[in-house]
Amino acid sequence: MTTHRFVPTAFFNTIGSHPPVLEIASGDTVIAETVDAHGFDRHGNKRGDRPNPMTGPFFVAGAEPGDTLQVKIDAIRMTRATGWTFDTLSPNVVDPGAVARFPERRKTGWVIDAQKGRAWLAEPPASLQNWSVAVEPMIGCFGVAPDVGQAISTATSGRYGGNMDYRGFCAGVDVMFPVSAPGALFFLGDVHAQQCDGEIVGTGIETAAEVTFTVKMIKNRKIGWPRGMTDTEIFTVGNSRPLDQALQHATTEMLDWLMEDYGLDEVAASHIMGQAVRYDVANVFNPAYSVACRIARSALTGLK
Amino acid sequence: MTTHRFVPTAFFNTIGSHPPVLEIASGDTVIAETVDAHGFDRHGNKRGDRPNPMTGPFFVAGAEPGDTLQVKIDAIRMTRATGWTFDTLSPNVVDPGAVARFPERRKTGWVIDAQKGRAWLAEPPASLQNWSVAVEPMIGCFGVAPDVGQAISTATSGRYGGNMDYRGFCAGVDVMFPVSAPGALFFLGDVHAQQCDGEIVGTGIETAAEVTFTVKMIKNRKIGWPRGMTDTEIFTVGNSRPLDQALQHATTEMLDWLMEDYGLDEVAASHIMGQAVRYDVANVFNPAYSVACRIARSALTGLK
Amino acid sequence: MTTHRFVPTAFFNTIGSHPPVLEIASGDTVIAETVDAHGFDRHGNKRGDRPNPMTGPFFVAGAEPGDTLQVKIDAIRMTRATGWTFDTLSPNVVDPGAVARFPERRKTGWVIDAQKGRAWLAEPPASLQNWSVAVEPMIGCFGVAPDVGQAISTATSGRYGGNMDYRGFCAGVDVMFPVSAPGALFFLGDVHAQQCDGEIVGTGIETAAEVTFTVKMIKNRKIGWPRGMTDTEIFTVGNSRPLDQALQHATTEMLDWLMEDYGLDEVAASHIMGQAVRYDVANVFNPAYSVACRIARSALTGLK
Amino acid sequence: MTTHRFVPTAFFNTIGSHPPVLEIASGDTVIAETVDAHGFDRHGNKRGDRPNPMTGPFFVAGAEPGDTLQVKIDAIRMTRATGWTFDTLSPNVVDPGAVARFPERRKTGWVIDAQKGRAWLAEPPASLQNWSVAVEPMIGCFGVAPDVGQAISTATSGRYGGNMDYRGFCAGVDVMFPVSAPGALFFLGDVHAQQCDGEIVGTGIETAAEVTFTVKMIKNRKIGWPRGMTDTEIFTVGNSRPLDQALQHATTEMLDWLMEDYGLDEVAASHIMGQAVRYDVANVFNPAYSVACRIARSALTGLK
Repeated sequence: MTTHRFVPTAFFNTIGSHPPVLEIASGDTVIAETVDAHGFDRHGNKRGDRPNPMTGPFFVAGAEPGDTLQVKIDAIRMTRATGWTFDTLSPNVVDPGAVARFPERRKTGWVIDAQKGRAWLAEPPASLQNWSVAVEPMIGCFGVAPDVGQAISTATSGRYGGNMDYRGFCAGVDVMFPVSAPGALFFLGDVHAQQCDGEIVGTGIETAAEVTFTVKMIKNRKIGWPRGMTDTEIFTVGNSRPLDQALQHATTEMLDWLMEDYGLDEVAASHIMGQAVRYDVANVFNPAYSVACRIARSALTGLK
Repeated sequence: MTTHRFVPTAFFNTIGSHPPVLEIASGDTVIAETVDAHGFDRHGNKRGDRPNPMTGPFFVAGAEPGDTLQVKIDAIRMTRATGWTFDTLSPNVVDPGAVARFPERRKTGWVIDAQKGRAWLAEPPASLQNWSVAVEPMIGCFGVAPDVGQAISTATSGRYGGNMDYRGFCAGVDVMFPVSAPGALFFLGDVHAQQCDGEIVGTGIETAAEVTFTVKMIKNRKIGWPRGMTDTEIFTVGNSRPLDQALQHATTEMLDWLMEDYGLDEVAASHIMGQAVRYDVANVFNPAYSVACRIARSALTGLK
Repeated sequence: MTTHRFVPTAFFNTIGSHPPVLEIASGDTVIAETVDAHGFDRHGNKRGDRPNPMTGPFFVAGAEPGDTLQVKIDAIRMTRATGWTFDTLSPNVVDPGAVARFPERRKTGWVIDAQKGRAWLAEPPASLQNWSVAVEPMIGCFGVAPDVGQAISTATSGRYGGNMDYRGFCAGVDVMFPVSAPGALFFLGDVHAQQCDGEIVGTGIETAAEVTFTVKMIKNRKIGWPRGMTDTEIFTVGNSRPLDQALQHATTEMLDWLMEDYGLDEVAASHIMGQAVRYDVANVFNPAYSVACRIARSALTGLK
Repeated sequence: MTTHRFVPTAFFNTIGSHPPVLEIASGDTVIAETVDAHGFDRHGNKRGDRPNPMTGPFFVAGAEPGDTLQVKIDAIRMTRATGWTFDTLSPNVVDPGAVARFPERRKTGWVIDAQKGRAWLAEPPASLQNWSVAVEPMIGCFGVAPDVGQAISTATSGRYGGNMDYRGFCAGVDVMFPVSAPGALFFLGDVHAQQCDGEIVGTGIETAAEVTFTVKMIKNRKIGWPRGMTDTEIFTVGNSRPLDQALQHATTEMLDWLMEDYGLDEVAASHIMGQAVRYDVANVFNPAYSVACRIARSALTGLK
């Protein structure tokens, strides 16, 4: 149950079977620094390249393909009082006929006040002079090495996690990833101070952070897609295009989870899901979109 | 400000320019009975045919194409202690390779206890013996006559509303529809006692009801898609396939709404939406899927 | 076996159960005039409104729901030496990021020389001064009244046919439609002098025409989607969004056809389709996209 | 202008920056053996693993990111008299409600007679006793190392090529790939003796082969997606899901090509494409679907 403090000196732009930066054990906690999506660190110095430079990989001793890696997000502490976003809705989230209404996309600065828990535009237009948003930090991109020895760009995502850009990946959540490589090889980065559903401007409020996480190895438990747990909910995440397919992946994974954990057949699980499921459109911007399928723990009351 | 009580004797399976059953005025309230999606009334008698037999149309005096019809859902009172659902996830919401795992779809009975606010399966499998769900009634299918003189099946939906099957259409919500025909011609029906996001078993808990609603005509206000308002949120609904396009419609409609009501340009509206938007997958079952784009009123604080 | 000559005086913008303009018998031939997609006739006079004003409906004596109406396109004769197109790729067929590269869409005139079989831009830019296209006339929009008493805009399409904008619907083809209303109620219009796959500028070369067709009623033959036959091929057409679903409809309809006509089971039909199927993207512009699934008659050699 | 003969001893299951097996020069020809999609060679011996084991990579001296690699497919000679396919339509290409009609997918043997140019099922059902198909060999999976140092599974495809499964990649075609890594790093494999549009049973007739190809380096020519040329056509290929997006990629790439090579602006290119484009659904089975956008050289007559 060691706590490691890790400050990266190099960053990967793919999630794959790269040489580990640290070996850790199941139960260990790591406090790791992350740079923003364009590679800028806590001091605003450029340390990595686009897309989404990753801290890691962390080698979890004993993890093997067919296991599950559970990662508890203990804390996400922003380390910079500035962030940035793009300033227009992404062309793919509006009607094709409305795309030409937008000016060319620009990068825009934000001020982040972690104490007050608010963020605002550094140079707001007149109409937004008195407007600000809550700070609710989340991890944009994290996951484990994918199968078949692949190394996949951190712009996208898959069964292994990746750039899911889901605001549900915040402090307090237990996230599970399917292990496909020895040591699991866990990467993380791309913290957002805030983000809507869908990441529809193509970014959250991108910033540098220090993430505290605790890993737990679950031997011989095979899952198909990332899963999450909070005190009040369980959820699954499917990553693909279009949204319809991401939703199919998340729904099928939830079906499997309910059947495994509650001894249900397909019909019983359908009854529960048919009245209780909630969906989040996590991101509808990246090459693979992400959809979360959630169920409140209260909706599972009365099951064995 | 008359209150009308309306008990239908015939039902339409299309939403279109049919002869009105009642003429009402802006400000009037109607208490109207609805039958369930397969046409069964409060006594369990078959009174209409599939799909989704509609009560109405109600002619709103003075409404013209280019206006908006606002319908406040005052109350949804279920009039039957029974409902029904389908018992398997719809083939289109799971991975294509998982479809064959499900038995053939059957219609399943539910007991609805409106007093207790709970519903449960009439003949539950052993695993669901102690399981029940909250009752949260909503309107599955409602809207106004579409444009070009169309009459469109109540199985589907469009700009005019229709079978959106969105659990957000519950008591207390103000819904707005774009008027395309003289008198607007408002139809409603297909009440559900409960339904998940996505209507992923192809039904909510289908039942008969008595819906109280109040209409308000907004002259010369042209909207593109259904909009809704609650005390805490505003939302838009896009109806289409795939989900990606339904989301584009809802997002573009929200963009327009924010620009109209808050004097924003595309960039300012993008900043707000990019941090504040929430999406609901209303239905992912009908010929047209429905996606809602929501913004909390609190996220609009500080705007003019 | 009568031959009727029909000159329309009014036009419908929906395909539905409208009063017939002419009753015909199975085996009859009709020579009918059609106006262009914006309602302009052979003389360039505006006679109908957008979208796609239809000639018809023709009532086929004895046709009932559950039958199939076979329509042989005997000839398509263009009656005007001019046509028009839009002049930019539709925003939905290019990468969202490329949409803003195009100027605003304009209507552009063409000269059609039916004798020479060529068409060219009336006012070409310098780069297209010596460029012309072949004339290959086709019917953009035709079909029979849909089910449930619907009346559906001629902008879109469905199982009943409609605005499929498929260049395969040309002279010499036998087209089959599923009958859903007494008399079938056949409509036609929207002839194009030429059109690419996909109708990616949103139009073919739109013009007025005189279409000669012969109807044949096939009693008690129920089909699911439009089918076609030429001397060398059979094909099915699925209409929906996205392309993936239109393709699923067309593929499933072809599966059923092969099984019905050749006594095959699903596996045998899969073997044939898996090596022989061709797909056409008929239109990727209208509210419902259209995909054709074709099989060469030569690929069916050796079957019973 | 050397001709190399290459017999692989090991195979890659990802396309990425792996150590080259052979360095070649622009203008060189290579005769390379390939094994089938499951790794079986000309003798039926298992030599590689799923998915699609690749021969290569070939390092093209001097090729750098920003260049284009042109690969002429000189010949595809099948080296085995047997092949195999799956025996059911893939669940994602039929209506979701039709999926359960199919039995479980099995691998089925074929006899290939290259002399006669025909192939037939090794153990045909009675209904297919006299049925055979033409042999038209094509390359299922080939391409160059992708950008960002990625190594991507040969199950899928992207801008770099990959598992496009397009029957248009046959002998006589010049294919162009965008170079993203020094030496381009060209891989190939997965030859099919025959395949329909869409690869709708999930395979072509999978077999081993000897492929002869000639490489040509085009310096400082940057393309976005694979392109192809035959004597009669030019084409582009977009790889993505859903089909709509693959089509957008292919269409935008064709737009760029016409503008570059013929000095056209967007409007002039739209006029040509709007009357002349043909689309092929290359594959609608793999994680990324592939769509080809073709234009006949005859449709470009009269341009500069």
